[in-house]
Amino acid sequence: MAVAGVDALLLSLGADLPWLTGYDAMPLERITMLVLPADQPATLVVPQLEAPRVEEHPEVFSLRPWAEGDDPVAVVAGLVGSRRRLAIGDRTWATFLVRLQEALPERVWAVASEVTGPIRAVKDPAEVEALAAASAANDRVARQLLAGEIPLVGRTESEVSADIGRRILAEGHQRVNFAIVGSGPNSASPHHEPGGRRIGPGEAVVCDFGGTMDGYCSDLTRTVFTGEPPDEQREVYELLQQAQETAVRRAVIGVTCEDVDRAARSVITDGGYGGAFIHRTGHGIGIEEHEDPYIVDGNATPLAEGHAFSVEPGIYLPGRYGARIEDIVVATAGGPRPLNVVSHDLTVVA
Amino acid sequence: MAVAGVDALLLSLGADLPWLTGYDAMPLERITMLVLPADQPATLVVPQLEAPRVEEHPEVFSLRPWAEGDDPVAVVAGLVGSRRRLAIGDRTWATFLVRLQEALPERVWAVASEVTGPIRAVKDPAEVEALAAASAANDRVARQLLAGEIPLVGRTESEVSADIGRRILAEGHQRVNFAIVGSGPNSASPHHEPGGRRIGPGEAVVCDFGGTMDGYCSDLTRTVFTGEPPDEQREVYELLQQAQETAVRRAVIGVTCEDVDRAARSVITDGGYGGAFIHRTGHGIGIEEHEDPYIVDGNATPLAEGHAFSVEPGIYLPGRYGARIEDIVVATAGGPRPLNVVSHDLTVVA
Repeated sequence: MAVAGVDALLLSLGADLPWLTGYDAMPLERITMLVLPADQPATLVVPQLEAPRVEEHPEVFSLRPWAEGDDPVAVVAGLVGSRRRLAIGDRTWATFLVRLQEALPERVWAVASEVTGPIRAVKDPAEVEALAAASAANDRVARQLLAGEIPLVGRTESEVSADIGRRILAEGHQRVNFAIVGSGPNSASPHHEPGGRRIGPGEAVVCDFGGTMDGYCSDLTRTVFTGEPPDEQREVYELLQQAQETAVRRAVIGVTCEDVDRAARSVITDGGYGGAFIHRTGHGIGIEEHEDPYIVDGNATPLAEGHAFSVEPGIYLPGRYGARIEDIVVATAGGPRPLNVVSHDLTVVA
Repeated sequence: MAVAGVDALLLSLGADLPWLTGYDAMPLERITMLVLPADQPATLVVPQLEAPRVEEHPEVFSLRPWAEGDDPVAVVAGLVGSRRRLAIGDRTWATFLVRLQEALPERVWAVASEVTGPIRAVKDPAEVEALAAASAANDRVARQLLAGEIPLVGRTESEVSADIGRRILAEGHQRVNFAIVGSGPNSASPHHEPGGRRIGPGEAVVCDFGGTMDGYCSDLTRTVFTGEPPDEQREVYELLQQAQETAVRRAVIGVTCEDVDRAARSVITDGGYGGAFIHRTGHGIGIEEHEDPYIVDGNATPLAEGHAFSVEPGIYLPGRYGARIEDIVVATAGGPRPLNVVSHDLTVVA
C-alpha cells in the first residue's frame, strides 16, 4: 500500500476479499466491506444477518455487523476516518462507490488491484501446483475431445458445451466457469455464446473451457475439425500453432508481457493474417480466470518467477471460420512451463 | 431521466442492460457499456471480440466495437460529451467507474436504478404471469418438501441444497439462484451457507430457494420440523406465521412499503420476539432476485398495482433455532395476490 500510495483498501465483491480473509461477500444489495487501513488493523463490515456466515480470524480482521436500518456507508466512512487515498475493490458495485463518494468527499480514488494485482500475480509453489492440478483436469477433457470421445457432428453447440461442462466437473473441478463452443462460421466469434446451431461435417469447432478446482482456475482452448480442412484453413491453423508455440518459448523471466504478445503477433502478421488476430495474447490466471499479468501490447511488466498466464492467439475470418489455441504457462527459473500439454497438432474428429 | 435529473445513463453489468437491449454484458475486464443520453439515440460500446455475440437492434441502439489497444473509456467519454449528470448501472464494476471519473471530471454521479428502479418495479400483466409461473414451479418443490418427499434426516445440508436445486430445474426453471438449507442451530443464521452439517431428528430446517424461469425469478421459504417441536418453538413458529399473514393482508395498493414492514414487525414485537427479527420484511422481485420496492423501514413508497415483492419475516434465536416464512406477493386492484400458495402450517416431516 505504501508503494502504491494508498491509505486504505476497501474490499467488497471480487477475489481480493476471500484471498485476504477467507470470506466471500454475498452479491446482494447489502454492503459487505473490508476496511483495511495501511496503519491500523482491518475491520469487516458485514450485514448482521450474514455475520453468522463469517468464519472469524481475529488476527486478520475484527467484525463489525450492521443492523437493518443502520447506515453501513456511514460505518465504512467512520472506519476510513480522515484517510485520503482510497483503493476500492475492482469488482465492487458502482452503487456502493457512488454512496461512499458522497460520504467521503475530497478523496483520491484508485482500484485495489493496484495494490493486490502485482502480489496476486506471483504464485508461490503451492499455488503453481494448484493451477497445475486444475490444468491437468482440463487436459483430460481436452484429450477426450481430441480422441473423438465428445460427439460433435449432429449435436448443437449448447449440447456440446453442457457435455464439456459435465466432464470438467467429473475430472475434479468444483465449478464450471465457461465452455465456449463455436462451430463453422461461429468459430470466427472469439467469445461466441454456444447456441442452437447444429454442428456439421467439415467444420472448425473452437472449444474454450475452464473451471475452478480447489480455488484455482483452468482455461484451455483447442480447435478441432469435423473433416479434413481445405488447404487455406490448414495453413491458417498451422500458422496459429507456430504463433502460439513461439510466444510460449518467448515467455522467459525478464521478458516483458508485451514482448510475449508481440512474439505471437509477428508470426501471424508475417503470415498475412495480422488483421484477423483481434485480441491480446493472454491474461494472468489464479483465483480469478482473468487477473494480472495481462499479455498485451502496452504492458511493459517483465515476467517474474511464478507469473501464470494464458497464451492464446487466434485468427478469425468473419463469416467463414476461426481458430484459437490456448495453454496456461508459468514463468519459472527453468524457462516457460506449460501447464497444458495436450497436443496442438491439427486434429480431425468424427 | 428528466424526472430523476439525469442527462445520460451508462449501463454495464446488471439487469438494466439486458432489460433495455436484450444483451447481457460479459463479466470480464473489457468494458461493455450502453451510453444512453436523454437527448440522443443510444450506443452500445462493446469489445470487438464480443461484438459478434450482440444481436443488433438498430432501432434501440447502434453498435460501437472497440479493438484491443483502443481506450474504451475514451470512447464512452466521447459519447457522453459535455453531459453533466450521469447515472451509472448499479452493478457496474468500481474499476470502470473510477476510470470513467478520471476521464469525465466535474460530473455529478448517480446510480441508474434511480431511473430504472421505479419503472422496473411495476410489472405489466405479462410480467406478473411470468413471475406467477416461476413461483408455481417453486411451489411444486415446496410441496415435495412439506410432503416429506425430500429426505432430510441423515443427509447434510449441502446434499439437501443440491437436491432442491435439481428439483428447481426439473420443475421448469432454467437456473438455480440459491438454495439455503439451515438446520438446527444453523436455522438461526438467515443467510446460512449450506454445509456439511448432518440434519438430525427434532430440528427446525429453514429452506429458502429460488431460480430464474423465462427471465423472471422465484423465491420462497418454508421452515419444516424433523420432529414435533417443543411448545416454545411451536409458539415462535405460530407467531411468525401470524406476522407473515398479517403483513400480506396489509399489502394493498396505496399502503407504504414501510407500513407492510411494520405490520409484520408489530406482531413479532408484541409477541416478545422483536429483537430476533433482524432483517427487513421483504424485497421486490422481477428479472433480479432483489430489486425495488424494498419492504423496509424508511421506504415511504406507496404500493402500486403491479408491484411484486417478497413478504418474509423471520425469528432467529442464535445458537438455538430460527424460522422464516416467505411468499412472493403482487399488489393488485383486487388486493394482495400471493403467488406462492403452499401451506404455512407447522409441518413435521420424516
